[in-house]
Amino acid sequence: MKLHKLLLILPAVCCMALHAGTASGKSPEIGAQVFIEPGQSPEDIDSFFRTLRDSGMTVARIRMFGSHMYRGDGSWDFTLYDEAFRAAERYGISLFATLFPPTDELTDVGGFKFPRSRAHLREVDGYVEAVVGHFRHSSALSTWVLQNEPGTGGVRVPPTELSREIFDRWQKSRPRSGYDNGFLKADFTQEEFLRYYTTWYMNHLAELVARLDPEHGRHVNPHQILSTLPEYDFVSYRRFLTSFGGSFHLSWHFGMFDEARYPLGVSLMSDIIRSAAGDKPFWVTELQGGNVTASGNVPYCPTAAHTAQYLWTSIAAGAEGVIFWTLNQRAAAMEAGEWGLLDFLRRPSDRLREAGAVAGCIGRHAGRLDGMRPAPARVTLLYNTESIRIQRRNADVLPSGEAGRKADAVMRSLARAYEAIAMSGITPAVEDMERFDWSCAEGRMAVIPNMVSLPSWSWPRIAEFVRGGGRLIVTGLSGFYDENMYCLFMNGFPLAECFGAEVSEFKVCGDRFVLDNGLSAHMWRGLLVPSTAEVETTFGCDVAAVRNRYGRGEVLWIPSLVELGAENDAGAMSVLAGFYRRECADAVAAAPASFAEPVPGVFMRTMLGGDDMLTVVVNKRDDAAVVPLRVAGYEAPEVIYGTASVVSDTLTLGADSCAVVLWRRCR
Amino acid sequence: MKLHKLLLILPAVCCMALHAGTASGKSPEIGAQVFIEPGQSPEDIDSFFRTLRDSGMTVARIRMFGSHMYRGDGSWDFTLYDEAFRAAERYGISLFATLFPPTDELTDVGGFKFPRSRAHLREVDGYVEAVVGHFRHSSALSTWVLQNEPGTGGVRVPPTELSREIFDRWQKSRPRSGYDNGFLKADFTQEEFLRYYTTWYMNHLAELVARLDPEHGRHVNPHQILSTLPEYDFVSYRRFLTSFGGSFHLSWHFGMFDEARYPLGVSLMSDIIRSAAGDKPFWVTELQGGNVTASGNVPYCPTAAHTAQYLWTSIAAGAEGVIFWTLNQRAAAMEAGEWGLLDFLRRPSDRLREAGAVAGCIGRHAGRLDGMRPAPARVTLLYNTESIRIQRRNADVLPSGEAGRKADAVMRSLARAYEAIAMSGITPAVEDMERFDWSCAEGRMAVIPNMVSLPSWSWPRIAEFVRGGGRLIVTGLSGFYDENMYCLFMNGFPLAECFGAEVSEFKVCGDRFVLDNGLSAHMWRGLLVPSTAEVETTFGCDVAAVRNRYGRGEVLWIPSLVELGAENDAGAMSVLAGFYRRECADAVAAAPASFAEPVPGVFMRTMLGGDDMLTVVVNKRDDAAVVPLRVAGYEAPEVIYGTASVVSDTLTLGADSCAVVLWRRCR
Amino acid sequence: MKLHKLLLILPAVCCMALHAGTASGKSPEIGAQVFIEPGQSPEDIDSFFRTLRDSGMTVARIRMFGSHMYRGDGSWDFTLYDEAFRAAERYGISLFATLFPPTDELTDVGGFKFPRSRAHLREVDGYVEAVVGHFRHSSALSTWVLQNEPGTGGVRVPPTELSREIFDRWQKSRPRSGYDNGFLKADFTQEEFLRYYTTWYMNHLAELVARLDPEHGRHVNPHQILSTLPEYDFVSYRRFLTSFGGSFHLSWHFGMFDEARYPLGVSLMSDIIRSAAGDKPFWVTELQGGNVTASGNVPYCPTAAHTAQYLWTSIAAGAEGVIFWTLNQRAAAMEAGEWGLLDFLRRPSDRLREAGAVAGCIGRHAGRLDGMRPAPARVTLLYNTESIRIQRRNADVLPSGEAGRKADAVMRSLARAYEAIAMSGITPAVEDMERFDWSCAEGRMAVIPNMVSLPSWSWPRIAEFVRGGGRLIVTGLSGFYDENMYCLFMNGFPLAECFGAEVSEFKVCGDRFVLDNGLSAHMWRGLLVPSTAEVETTFGCDVAAVRNRYGRGEVLWIPSLVELGAENDAGAMSVLAGFYRRECADAVAAAPASFAEPVPGVFMRTMLGGDDMLTVVVNKRDDAAVVPLRVAGYEAPEVIYGTASVVSDTLTLGADSCAVVLWRRCR
Repeated sequence: MKLHKLLLILPAVCCMALHAGTASGKSPEIGAQVFIEPGQSPEDIDSFFRTLRDSGMTVARIRMFGSHMYRGDGSWDFTLYDEAFRAAERYGISLFATLFPPTDELTDVGGFKFPRSRAHLREVDGYVEAVVGHFRHSSALSTWVLQNEPGTGGVRVPPTELSREIFDRWQKSRPRSGYDNGFLKADFTQEEFLRYYTTWYMNHLAELVARLDPEHGRHVNPHQILSTLPEYDFVSYRRFLTSFGGSFHLSWHFGMFDEARYPLGVSLMSDIIRSAAGDKPFWVTELQGGNVTASGNVPYCPTAAHTAQYLWTSIAAGAEGVIFWTLNQRAAAMEAGEWGLLDFLRRPSDRLREAGAVAGCIGRHAGRLDGMRPAPARVTLLYNTESIRIQRRNADVLPSGEAGRKADAVMRSLARAYEAIAMSGITPAVEDMERFDWSCAEGRMAVIPNMVSLPSWSWPRIAEFVRGGGRLIVTGLSGFYDENMYCLFMNGFPLAECFGAEVSEFKVCGDRFVLDNGLSAHMWRGLLVPSTAEVETTFGCDVAAVRNRYGRGEVLWIPSLVELGAENDAGAMSVLAGFYRRECADAVAAAPASFAEPVPGVFMRTMLGGDDMLTVVVNKRDDAAVVPLRVAGYEAPEVIYGTASVVSDTLTLGADSCAVVLWRRCR
Repeated sequence: MKLHKLLLILPAVCCMALHAGTASGKSPEIGAQVFIEPGQSPEDIDSFFRTLRDSGMTVARIRMFGSHMYRGDGSWDFTLYDEAFRAAERYGISLFATLFPPTDELTDVGGFKFPRSRAHLREVDGYVEAVVGHFRHSSALSTWVLQNEPGTGGVRVPPTELSREIFDRWQKSRPRSGYDNGFLKADFTQEEFLRYYTTWYMNHLAELVARLDPEHGRHVNPHQILSTLPEYDFVSYRRFLTSFGGSFHLSWHFGMFDEARYPLGVSLMSDIIRSAAGDKPFWVTELQGGNVTASGNVPYCPTAAHTAQYLWTSIAAGAEGVIFWTLNQRAAAMEAGEWGLLDFLRRPSDRLREAGAVAGCIGRHAGRLDGMRPAPARVTLLYNTESIRIQRRNADVLPSGEAGRKADAVMRSLARAYEAIAMSGITPAVEDMERFDWSCAEGRMAVIPNMVSLPSWSWPRIAEFVRGGGRLIVTGLSGFYDENMYCLFMNGFPLAECFGAEVSEFKVCGDRFVLDNGLSAHMWRGLLVPSTAEVETTFGCDVAAVRNRYGRGEVLWIPSLVELGAENDAGAMSVLAGFYRRECADAVAAAPASFAEPVPGVFMRTMLGGDDMLTVVVNKRDDAAVVPLRVAGYEAPEVIYGTASVVSDTLTLGADSCAVVLWRRCR
Repeated sequence: MKLHKLLLILPAVCCMALHAGTASGKSPEIGAQVFIEPGQSPEDIDSFFRTLRDSGMTVARIRMFGSHMYRGDGSWDFTLYDEAFRAAERYGISLFATLFPPTDELTDVGGFKFPRSRAHLREVDGYVEAVVGHFRHSSALSTWVLQNEPGTGGVRVPPTELSREIFDRWQKSRPRSGYDNGFLKADFTQEEFLRYYTTWYMNHLAELVARLDPEHGRHVNPHQILSTLPEYDFVSYRRFLTSFGGSFHLSWHFGMFDEARYPLGVSLMSDIIRSAAGDKPFWVTELQGGNVTASGNVPYCPTAAHTAQYLWTSIAAGAEGVIFWTLNQRAAAMEAGEWGLLDFLRRPSDRLREAGAVAGCIGRHAGRLDGMRPAPARVTLLYNTESIRIQRRNADVLPSGEAGRKADAVMRSLARAYEAIAMSGITPAVEDMERFDWSCAEGRMAVIPNMVSLPSWSWPRIAEFVRGGGRLIVTGLSGFYDENMYCLFMNGFPLAECFGAEVSEFKVCGDRFVLDNGLSAHMWRGLLVPSTAEVETTFGCDVAAVRNRYGRGEVLWIPSLVELGAENDAGAMSVLAGFYRRECADAVAAAPASFAEPVPGVFMRTMLGGDDMLTVVVNKRDDAAVVPLRVAGYEAPEVIYGTASVVSDTLTLGADSCAVVLWRRCR
């Protein structure tokens, strides 16, 4: 225990800093998409920007519809958009302008993802040159969004003349893996090319924009990221983007969460994008503004309270800003009358008024909030794209729909681990294993939740991390495959020494079963044969989990799907939260703020900056929550948003609501 | 109240007459499809017609299979069908002969809908010329059915050489809408062309038949009409048809009804076809005769009691006649051994015996029944094809299946409004808004139940109707779109003055929620901002319904899905029935017969003629019903069918049964 | 009664012999698939065969991957497989070698079913010549498996140059049915050609192999047989196969059974393959060896106890041997790390150890077990491929999923009849009606469970069987169609005299209803009109079942789906078991071993040989079973496997376990 405490205090600090990202130092901004379309009058457009200003918003996003501008004879009519830029200038609103080359507006609601041909690419370039050339001088302009939501959701690039050309070139120059164990290799060329091609096209746009307008920012907003993650090469994007973003629509992208877990989902997705951004700032580029009728997978209209919850969660997760989709509804065809923050009478909805209240609150406390960053996390949840790809490949050929065999089983497991840890009032970092700094191990804990693939490049890094003092929790089918879908548990598990054990078998054990330590698990039970590891728990006579000291670190291995086993079962989730609480006790102890014990249905994020701490607390229960806080080194809590009370480390908060508390460092 | 009563008595009468249609003045006829196929002997065929005669039936339908007649060398062999016509002549059965050009009988069970090419069209014409030319002289012949069930159920015409030719011609001559508000327009060209092309082809057949045989009738029988309605241009059909029909198969077409609501469905579909027919008579051209095994969406065999219920309901809805599908089962391949009224031993099934009993009852009371027409309705449910089209368009891209987002949400809402009103013992008319006589407003009520589109042409007519003294109830998402999928609630609702309010928002409010006046609603809650209207009910602080006086009329607007909110919930349906009862109090009071209060599970239709009134009452409950009648101006009830009793305005009727009561006008 | 008893004793014996098949006279063998793949070392391969030997196994199967051998230049590299054959020789393991011509191993997990072209066929032949030529000299070689799992699961041959050529030739020479009643005929040409083409290709391979290597066996292993049965012409196969086999994977092929009924399923499928094999021996060529993660329809890992249950059931059903799929897991790509009997550490799993215990038990009692055969069955369940085809044709066009309308309703009915009879401790034979020996009738009972088609060729045979003293039970929609989908109940049922009645109608009667004799039935209720038959039971006023004496035999006809009516309902299944018990009382009385009364959840199979009897009893209940046995003519029970006790004809057996008892004939 003493050693642990030391580890916490000493070398950990250097590492943590890496994970807090780099802030712009400004207060978070709030804005909304102004949907510009033919049919609107200059007065209409003026009123939208005036409303933004009046609601305390400072930023707007505009989709620069090529189809509204292109005259057909090669020339462009910018009148409509000039109106918008002038209105933005008039009301001091800075603009995110989304490049949106001409397309059939009736059928292509999100925009095409790739040009159809070389000729089409030239047309796209012509559009970019015209639009960027024209609008780059506007004082309202802040950032070019290179493309709306680049992900395709598929696994292969649509074959076109252009894609074939790029594919052939890529195939020739593509570096081959040196890893070959002689066994058959599954072929993920198409998936890898999709990732390459997406980067290639986005880089093409970015270079063109940077050449035309080096002054302003460049941004993109991937959507549905929990399933489209393998499509993005975020590290490469850092070369040509100035900020990162994401689309977070409750009605479209939150299939792994029920309504009570939407704030958790916002938090998780924010953490993923923040990690992807590295040193660059990140924005929530699209957040659902209002009701849906005909669109969206899940019919949903955020309440005012929900809107505040998502806003504060995004901010506490480190977003530079949040832009709602949309201020005003599209008026016609797909999505007509949906998604907006304004009501049909152009009055601010309760959602917009609440967003304004959040903006006002931020403004009032700007001095203390500026430059605040999410509290560093000592626990990191790790994922890798190989696992997502392989799980999808397997799910694609299966008719049956058990949770553990679905395409989303990998990231859904991560989401449940995130939830379990968050019940202690701290939030884990979430990182791609490829970008994780494995060398910074001392005092840190990493969790590999049901990552069905551990690619060969990860093995030495994992071992280095543990040897160097890191603690590792590995669950589920993690490591079942390498990157080639070779089963790692056969013929000598490469991490056997590090993990101190090997899996001898997995056995289907029913939809849900309970390990002897009380953890529920789903479907498969892994049987372990320990070498150096100690038995952590059993299932009857079988070893179900082990703990192994390795170097200066430790691995806890539970090769059963304990995260999915806790899904949709409050009791099982409490047990899982208790488990993670114990395992993360050091991280909880080291956190500036946490819960004294796991609290179901309440979520907290913490930011630090200067001598101040900000805690955002969301209660998603049907009744008021009395939350026992554990705050170390901060005092004088001030509830700056929401109707909560904090009395001697006990926070009381009404049903389905959000409170923001500002603390000052103890002197 | 006094004013209202006056309105009821005075000018309403002229309008009502319009809605009773024009009867042939004859008693309703009952018949059945005789399925003729190779393999049958002359004795077989003779026995079918003899059985019809012996069962009191007067009409038969025959499918004139071209594939049974065509010799391949260009000549025709009519032997089999000559047998049938001779047998019909022998037993005094009049024939509906369905044109059915040669097709692959094994795979094309319903017949092709459009010719594949010009050449194929010529072949069709050759078939028609041969068949009509040969059989037009038969004294048994009554009517040519131009095509079996013309609807495709799709949204576009299959592209063929011929359809492309007609499309190009149509595009050139097609009248364009003058309505343009500058916003984007959704494209329904394909849906409109399907409607045009269907009319074009049917008109082609009709003209050919009329030229060859001007003496006999021309008829078609659309099926699955609650979803295929947008495909038919009924007003144009009136030019070339002599009578209208429909296919009403419980196992195929009643997806919006459970078994206990099948009579309601028969009644509703009859009202739609009757309205479509205008001055022309209408028939129930196909009514399910018997059991299904391998065909049909819903396995079902009508009982004898059910058969009588559907027959009497059709008759009370004004059908000139009802033709069962089929008398004898097809013997081979698809539908073999299914659908028949005969049993496999050629004996009358209990269904056929019951149909014979109905025919006998009609015969015995012919003097009083002849020329009877459905009692005029003061309440009309309105639909429009734009709503059905747009709802389908939206549903087609959605994976999620909430009731309010399904393709059938529009007509399903209408069906539930129909049911709610019918619980008071009266039946509303059902009309296409395009054909509705909006100028005849005084004393009338119209209901627009969740018609998601109110096309621009309807706005002045709606306002005219209300100004002229009509009362209007508008529910659900009615008016969300115009015909172009432009959202009418944005940028100034065109009916704001007439409705006295505007919708400020819709909000998803869960699968079911309850307004403050007790009405249940589904999914979206519309929030109203009244101008001249008075608040009718609220949901918490929000206005959920308003009532507006406008001109001499009134609009009651509940922009929440109260019809779908009452579906599958007997309690909520009772509340909805009570609501409609109060709103339709005048219509109920003016009806010659009604229930003293809403009665769940019991359905009544009323016919009038001369000094007589006929009431058909169907009890779909599991137990006997004691129904409190309210009869104005009629006396001396005589139960002419079924075992019911009527004692001082109380009708008692056994479980799942039907009674027919004949009344005489008070002197 | 007296007559019956006589019938039992006298001529029945001759018939019974036919149904016991011909045994090799050897003890049953147990083995496993050794999965050979590049990446394995000679030591790996050696260890697999050593493990087999050490586990008491005597046989292995190997897939001879052409893609592992083909050098691309026309030459072959057999190194890897030479290792395997040498290892097999070393440990005395005999080999089933599966021919598996080169194919894309990444996407074609089961192997192609037909060559793509003449050229491809020549390549296949070249592969066969090379492989058979090389390995035929190995002393380990036992049998060539001509093709892995020949069935396609489809209804038509994929159109290729080669298949079109064979089709044209077949069409010219194909014998036409002389049966024509003048009515339309459904077209099953494609289904028939699939069956022909499968036979053609397998015969092609068999002739080639026999020419190259006349010494060794030839075998195939159809899979998913309850639905692919119509694809196989087993009688033709007998010409060129030396033994028959089947793949029985719980995770893939047992959709008609829940886990507690898997032993029943193994038994039923074994009976079908045994009957298909005729005089030839049959093997369970693939039995699921272990866990699945990404493959299989149903996630499942057999327990050690289950493994023993399936093994003993297969053996008691007459299998010459059982080969697990697999010993060692595939290591890469599809199915990596799945299906194996070894654990990942190459240690025997509990399943392998249990299989070894079974092998040991067999070895210890070889003297008494050698040459034992399944006790002859006096009851035979009959199916025909016409029914399976027609049911599938009907189901293919239906969206609705009622049990009685699904494609599997025919064989699912048979499976439930099998279960109901087996509850009495005896197992019925299962035979294709085309192969059944109808002339051997005296003392036998046949059941036709919901065979929707009774083809014309079957009518005289059925009548002959009953006339000759056979007893027949006919249930469900049996006989609804002939082979052309002509409805047999119309126009004079051809078996009316034999059955003593006709069906007048079927009527949908709800998902489940109860006949007056207590039998539950599903969906359709058949109404009977008896001529000579006596009423057996009624449904209200309708006759629901009849019993008819005809010649020296008897027909019991219940034209309602009583088998599906008992599915998923323990009470209804008990009633059905009681019904079959009474009807099969003679067969039960004549069986050497049976239960004194129907016992739910317990399954028994009996083998006879010399003076010995073997009873395999499987208890699938959650608790111990006390089973009242009825043993005639045997004594001195010895429990040779499992922990059961037999005390004065009462067998006591623990939950979910299996016992094997050896008896000696009474002196």
